[in-house]
Amino acid sequence: MPYISTKTNIVITKEKETTIKEKLGKAIELIPGKSEHWLMLSFEDNASMYFQGKSDSGIAFVEVKLFGSASSSAYDKLTAAITDILKEELELAPDKVYVKYEEVSNWGYNGNNF
Amino acid sequence: MPYISTKTNIVITKEKETTIKEKLGKAIELIPGKSEHWLMLSFEDNASMYFQGKSDSGIAFVEVKLFGSASSSAYDKLTAAITDILKEELELAPDKVYVKYEEVSNWGYNGNNF
Amino acid sequence: MPYISTKTNIVITKEKETTIKEKLGKAIELIPGKSEHWLMLSFEDNASMYFQGKSDSGIAFVEVKLFGSASSSAYDKLTAAITDILKEELELAPDKVYVKYEEVSNWGYNGNNF
Repeated sequence: MPYISTKTNIVITKEKETTIKEKLGKAIELIPGKSEHWLMLSFEDNASMYFQGKSDSGIAFVEVKLFGSASSSAYDKLTAAITDILKEELELAPDKVYVKYEEVSNWGYNGNNF
Repeated sequence: MPYISTKTNIVITKEKETTIKEKLGKAIELIPGKSEHWLMLSFEDNASMYFQGKSDSGIAFVEVKLFGSASSSAYDKLTAAITDILKEELELAPDKVYVKYEEVSNWGYNGNNF
Repeated sequence: MPYISTKTNIVITKEKETTIKEKLGKAIELIPGKSEHWLMLSFEDNASMYFQGKSDSGIAFVEVKLFGSASSSAYDKLTAAITDILKEELELAPDKVYVKYEEVSNWGYNGNNF
């Protein structure tokens, strides 16, 4: 039941989006018990964003929401992996990327809560 | 002070949006003490989304944010109601819909926090 | 490590967005230890939104996400400041504006979590 939203001020081509989607589907396995089988993703490009008061370079805000919780070390590994993916595929500088986690207690799927 | 955001990869016509808005305004009463009087909604259609690595069918991610907390059974009922509404109005399959809850401690309105 | 997203159903001109960006960069200092140096912002205008079942006036939903936590009085001051900014720059009525806070335990930057 993880969900990863990627919001950035730069353009993501459909080809790049597909590659990032595949890489995130593997990266999510860094969180024990999670896999692409339960992963939902969203991408929002060309967004109005600022970091440190500026918008003249690529910026990204990634939110990882997951049912339950995981260890700090698992989150550390996932942050490194996501930051790498965005650097490789979108040339986003790691020091312009935030990856934020939310542990969720109440999460519904298929009409029922887990 | 609830807020419900509905994000989906399919198109929501204005007519459907109005109907869903009205139905959510009633469904929120499943949470004790909440009503349309305090409900804010947002809709984002035609979003870039994937579930289980695929984007070839309708997908939705619904976030319910509310001040304070409610019981698990209230959340269960709301998940069932929201999933039904999206099935009825948008033909979204329940097994392609996540409904995620966030209980909020600090929430401002009209320039002050509750 | 704060992040402020502003979502509204009205239009934000680039000029207004720049002014709001600058004012938010100062307002964030109301939270001890936070400054524009770490602040990321996003703006989404012209969104499909409803409040109290209606969409015939300006509405805004502002989310403030920050690493760690702050006092209730700091959040109170920030809510007042944000609401003032939106009133001054966008003529948004304070009773149509929600400001919601999220305290975050796991937050990554530059490939590592704080």
